Amino acid sequence: VGVVASDEPGTVSAARFTSNARVGAPVIVSRQADLGALRAVAANSGCSNVGDGERGLGTALAMQAAAAGELGLEPAQVAVASTGVIGIELPRDRVVAGVRAACAQLKPDADDFAHAILTSDAGPKRACLEVRLAGGSVRLAAQAKGAGMISPRYATMFCFVQTDAVLEQQTLELLTGVCVKRSFDRISVDGQLSTNDTAILMASGASGVVVEPESEDELRFGEALDYVLRRLAILMVRDGEGTRRVTRVVVRGGVPEGVERVAREIANSPLVKTAIYGGDPNWGRIAQAIGAALPGTHPLKYDIRVEGTLVCSGGYATRETAEFTGDEVELEITLPGDGAETEVFFSDLGHEYITINADY
Amino acid sequence: VGVVASDEPGTVSAARFTSNARVGAPVIVSRQADLGALRAVAANSGCSNVGDGERGLGTALAMQAAAAGELGLEPAQVAVASTGVIGIELPRDRVVAGVRAACAQLKPDADDFAHAILTSDAGPKRACLEVRLAGGSVRLAAQAKGAGMISPRYATMFCFVQTDAVLEQQTLELLTGVCVKRSFDRISVDGQLSTNDTAILMASGASGVVVEPESEDELRFGEALDYVLRRLAILMVRDGEGTRRVTRVVVRGGVPEGVERVAREIANSPLVKTAIYGGDPNWGRIAQAIGAALPGTHPLKYDIRVEGTLVCSGGYATRETAEFTGDEVELEITLPGDGAETEVFFSDLGHEYITINADY
Repeated sequence: VGVVASDEPGTVSAARFTSNARVGAPVIVSRQADLGALRAVAANSGCSNVGDGERGLGTALAMQAAAAGELGLEPAQVAVASTGVIGIELPRDRVVAGVRAACAQLKPDADDFAHAILTSDAGPKRACLEVRLAGGSVRLAAQAKGAGMISPRYATMFCFVQTDAVLEQQTLELLTGVCVKRSFDRISVDGQLSTNDTAILMASGASGVVVEPESEDELRFGEALDYVLRRLAILMVRDGEGTRRVTRVVVRGGVPEGVERVAREIANSPLVKTAIYGGDPNWGRIAQAIGAALPGTHPLKYDIRVEGTLVCSGGYATRETAEFTGDEVELEITLPGDGAETEVFFSDLGHEYITINADY
Repeated sequence: VGVVASDEPGTVSAARFTSNARVGAPVIVSRQADLGALRAVAANSGCSNVGDGERGLGTALAMQAAAAGELGLEPAQVAVASTGVIGIELPRDRVVAGVRAACAQLKPDADDFAHAILTSDAGPKRACLEVRLAGGSVRLAAQAKGAGMISPRYATMFCFVQTDAVLEQQTLELLTGVCVKRSFDRISVDGQLSTNDTAILMASGASGVVVEPESEDELRFGEALDYVLRRLAILMVRDGEGTRRVTRVVVRGGVPEGVERVAREIANSPLVKTAIYGGDPNWGRIAQAIGAALPGTHPLKYDIRVEGTLVCSGGYATRETAEFTGDEVELEITLPGDGAETEVFFSDLGHEYITINADY
């Protein structure tokens, strides 16, 4: 159990949750909190508190109330987040005692918190940045977790970000929307959407440095936030269950929905993923995924580049060979037309994924 | 290389091809043939003749012309089909010589043909049936292949069906449409859509037994065809790369698109597939897949039965435990409302899939 909290009464916040229709009790409870003015988050790992009915909902409310009581806040100022097994009971007394203990041990450093939220992660995922603005420096700190989207004992991605910048809630909301779309919305370990994904940003204003809307400072702060969230998102892919290589696929073309569908189809294709795991730049599998993503659009012309080498031009083999031996791979797909572009970072699929998810 | 042909000039036929936007040269050539009056199919395995441009198209046309020449047919009466590696050259002289040799060795038995089309299949997939109709008996014979939808050296599903019944082309067309939808459209090994999937049915009329449209005989013949295609489809799942268990998921509810999306999301979830491979009736992963398939529909109430045991009722754990140890698993999902129902047969995901697709 871990708790992160802001001392500043004027703290503003923004939050994003999973789009899975089946959400856990913590997401239900957090969504009803005052998401623009959160002061604290209480989180646990080991049990996701999903599928336990009224009892689970009561436990999420008890976590929220315990943190609020200890910190002198209203329950609506506290969000809760749980990650772990679906469909089992989260022991209420133990988790509430954990929340109280965590509140009693709060300190400026979020190291313990970064560890508390881990499940199958190889280690804590953190990013901290100092950003120089016109009126002075502000700090950004973030803690995240995520390795498989969901698994028997482990589930979910979390990201909690704190900054001491002075931001209007609408500004934070806007920046959160943009940066989450460019980070956690653009990764895939196994294409599986968790029931409990949660990202919460809190701006305490403690630095006194104001980020004015539509200013150079807002741009600079936004770039820093973007950097932090993308870094953490890529760390999740890097730490994806059993992953050997992280691949970035960039798709360009004339139709926004088309480039998105193609990028996702490639990122979630078990045949593309196993080829990358095996170190084979097998563009036939990429071609198959492109065609599967765009039914009814033949003749379909496209170029495929693997690590910068054009292996397929206009849909036909160039007979150039690409190679990759490192732990990062770059794929570029060019569809007809231009104006749209997207990217997805994804894990490969190897023996250890099966071991983690079948042989547990 | 294998060739299947009908001696009867009055033969009618029906065909279905992949919906992948990127199709191979054999599909392009076959689609332009006279699909209602095919007399022969020339097929090869080892190379799918995809992505080789004008040269590949020329080779598919050469296969078609060679079979037509040897059999005394028009090229438009011959379909072609290739399965294997994408993006390499199909050697024209060798494959044409193979087609000529196969034509010279035609015999009543399709055993050689059933072997000729295999790639990663464990063995030939055949089904033969005699159907007693009002006017006498007719025979159905079918040869199929398919184990992974596509893979480096192996690709695609094929099914070729021959019958000596007398059928109008429109009747065969109708029955083909219905039966393909209930068989090959309802299976998934790895969710990957091939570039070359092909199903071709030919009715020679050699028995002289007429199947009248909208008769009891049509119903009986349709049931027999349905049985043959479903059997072959399930054999493909059974033989899916690395498969330990075949699962049938049945989804019922009020919305046709909803039940279809849920069934596909479950069938293609690597987490559900690895759980089944591991022998774990992990309904949390099924719940996650249901929720992912139906964004924006919460609160979502559903029941999940594993091997007949209700493990989740209204979205909540019943605390009943299900077990499976055999090589077949039955999942039943009940969504709100009724009137719609679908099923999908799917392979699980285990170590051997990775070995076949990554370590080749």
